[in-house]
Amino acid sequence: MADILIKDTLLVTVDELRPGYFIGDILVKGDKISRISEHPEKIDSKAAEVVIDGRNLLVMPGLVNTHGHAAMTLLRSYADDLPLQEWLEEKIWPIEEHLTADDVYWGSMLAICEMLKGGTTTFKDMYFFMDKVAEAAAESGIRAFLSRGMIGFGDSAAKGLKETEEFIKNWHGAEGGRINITLGPHAPYTCPPPYLEKVIALATKSGRPLQIHLSETKREVEESIAQHGASPIELVYRLGLFAHQVTAAHCVHVSDHDMEILAENQVGVAHNPGSNLKLGSGVAPVARMLAKGIKVGIGTDGASSNNNLDMFEELRLTSLLAKGIAMDPTLIDAKTALRMATVTGAEALFLEDCGCLKEGWKADLIGLRLDVPHLTPMHDPTAQIVYAASAADVDLVLVDGKIVLEKGELLTIDEAKIRAEATRCATRLVGAVKEKEGK
Amino acid sequence: MADILIKDTLLVTVDELRPGYFIGDILVKGDKISRISEHPEKIDSKAAEVVIDGRNLLVMPGLVNTHGHAAMTLLRSYADDLPLQEWLEEKIWPIEEHLTADDVYWGSMLAICEMLKGGTTTFKDMYFFMDKVAEAAAESGIRAFLSRGMIGFGDSAAKGLKETEEFIKNWHGAEGGRINITLGPHAPYTCPPPYLEKVIALATKSGRPLQIHLSETKREVEESIAQHGASPIELVYRLGLFAHQVTAAHCVHVSDHDMEILAENQVGVAHNPGSNLKLGSGVAPVARMLAKGIKVGIGTDGASSNNNLDMFEELRLTSLLAKGIAMDPTLIDAKTALRMATVTGAEALFLEDCGCLKEGWKADLIGLRLDVPHLTPMHDPTAQIVYAASAADVDLVLVDGKIVLEKGELLTIDEAKIRAEATRCATRLVGAVKEKEGK
Repeated sequence: MADILIKDTLLVTVDELRPGYFIGDILVKGDKISRISEHPEKIDSKAAEVVIDGRNLLVMPGLVNTHGHAAMTLLRSYADDLPLQEWLEEKIWPIEEHLTADDVYWGSMLAICEMLKGGTTTFKDMYFFMDKVAEAAAESGIRAFLSRGMIGFGDSAAKGLKETEEFIKNWHGAEGGRINITLGPHAPYTCPPPYLEKVIALATKSGRPLQIHLSETKREVEESIAQHGASPIELVYRLGLFAHQVTAAHCVHVSDHDMEILAENQVGVAHNPGSNLKLGSGVAPVARMLAKGIKVGIGTDGASSNNNLDMFEELRLTSLLAKGIAMDPTLIDAKTALRMATVTGAEALFLEDCGCLKEGWKADLIGLRLDVPHLTPMHDPTAQIVYAASAADVDLVLVDGKIVLEKGELLTIDEAKIRAEATRCATRLVGAVKEKEGK
Repeated sequence: MADILIKDTLLVTVDELRPGYFIGDILVKGDKISRISEHPEKIDSKAAEVVIDGRNLLVMPGLVNTHGHAAMTLLRSYADDLPLQEWLEEKIWPIEEHLTADDVYWGSMLAICEMLKGGTTTFKDMYFFMDKVAEAAAESGIRAFLSRGMIGFGDSAAKGLKETEEFIKNWHGAEGGRINITLGPHAPYTCPPPYLEKVIALATKSGRPLQIHLSETKREVEESIAQHGASPIELVYRLGLFAHQVTAAHCVHVSDHDMEILAENQVGVAHNPGSNLKLGSGVAPVARMLAKGIKVGIGTDGASSNNNLDMFEELRLTSLLAKGIAMDPTLIDAKTALRMATVTGAEALFLEDCGCLKEGWKADLIGLRLDVPHLTPMHDPTAQIVYAASAADVDLVLVDGKIVLEKGELLTIDEAKIRAEATRCATRLVGAVKEKEGK
């Protein structure tokens, strides 16, 4: 792997030990950031085989998408504006029934195309046919945290545990550690306590972290209290889930007690503001969670409830929603929102040495083009990233020290082919649903 | 002006008499849409001098930005995350004091660059040095509704009325009707009743519509009730303002009675969801306003409180916020949000025959590139526009029958020069503030 030097660039490191922004150089050796210089101190061009002129770029850490279901890109804008149960039961589940491994591969590839082009360098995923998602991640060069979604009912209960164990064995640590496998019990309402106990036993055995959906909707919380006398968060805490590293997706309807549990147990939270709004779930109390010391990262959720995988939109929404709902414009300032989408997101996934431009840390970084009207003038780069930038500004992406996107073009995968194959899969799926419905 | 034919394209006309989308051709003659065909019916290529291959495009009406302060692009990301009064009094007003006509020209040009590139074909503006905004709009080819902001205190009171009268005389109807001048009393709290009466007299004399900020913040409403025994909306209604055509910006804190006044008087509302969130003003009850029959359009507000002028973000936010806050995913569906950003926005500005692709209507239209991951696959074009598309997808823009942007490049104005001049102006402004503060 060639060493890479980006010169004369506007750096937003998200490292609290450095100024918020400065002009400098950044040197990448292997999969790590080797050196960052702040001008007038410069790094010699001879230090690397590949030298990139950074004068028209803002270089920052890659974005960390802490929650999603990548292959659901195939269902993007397939069903919208419906009540939650109707959307799930009459639209999403019937079409998901027809999904094949081939669909999941191309749908995940489409998601990875979109994520890399929009500056996401790490994503966390929960779905099925996960070997195919791992293949797509491996080929594309993106960093991945993958879970085979587990449901504790019927035949799928034992199958989920078995396949998870195999998935860890086959894929965890692949591509020099770029592919990470985690356990994915779907949610307390789909994984009853005896099943969750088996999942926890597998977490103990494998030593791998978990991800789970918790307290996404008001109804889910009310039903949990009625059934178990405990909120979803209290319930899984009592079962011992939080003795392990857990990333909890959503956490929209959380009590003070729930938040205390999350904080004390260092649970990572994946906040999905766009999906929570679009499905009518509500708005998570993010500013309050942060104030309690909870590590809250940001996620897009799947493209059937968002409907894109644009982390710039989500990080902006995180800040704007907090301010607007509480009617306090000082909440979740630009710096906080940017940290949530980068280094705090990495922490919420228990990913160390990533999400921040720091010597010795992983070389996951992106460059935004500056020659666009909406990033002009440049009074404050952090505020520009959070309040004005767009996924389309991403011009350069490095993951694990390797250039995967340059001048806006993907180098590792064939975008046009992926779009064509994804369209083919989506068309077949719609046809299969219509045929089954006898249309 | 050459006739233009766009062939074999995906058309989303927003015309309720046609299907939601279809493949067809669209012919533009002069400033009007002359013919729309739905395949297999086709329009002969010989019908126009300019023929555009539309196979990779989604063609839809241009977006209508119903409220903003264009030249505030110079203050983009200059001051953020501050309490409203501190932001205004310590940051925005002190720098605005130093604004020159030259600054307003280049700041407005920068805004127009950004708006045209992002698919906005009509914008409404309220600021000062408005001759310069009119010049910028005339040169660029965008459709404009411009108001010289009027404040009813001190020397500026009489000056505002006089300059508005001159502005109407010099500019209204220029460029074949593309430049429209309206009256711009800033707000009831800056225009006391005796002054508003003079503004209303000028509206009667000139026959021009008005725009005004109404009920943006909770404090503004409380102070109006304390001072006048009436909400801002009730107050201006009693003064007779609504006997004229009025576009009211914001309307965040509105009572049922306020909404009834707006509906009965056919007041157009400009909803600015991003700005209202960012400044901590709150969330306007848009779904309820629409249910009462109020014409609610969408606006970006100025770039110092947003911080971009991206109407795709605002139309998406309009739908998502309504759903999330009321916890009802059926509110403001994709079709409604798209209408708000196009034809309903035009109606809120009292602009007829615009905002919809219809034979005989104004040829203000845009084309989005379809060869992007986030618009793949294409299950539902309307949902894709509202929930997945981005300003960066805009590839083609026609205003008043003239091509102003093609293959993503502006044809009428020099973007690189505008960015450089705007940066020069912004740098000078910051220097002037620092000098005055003795820094």
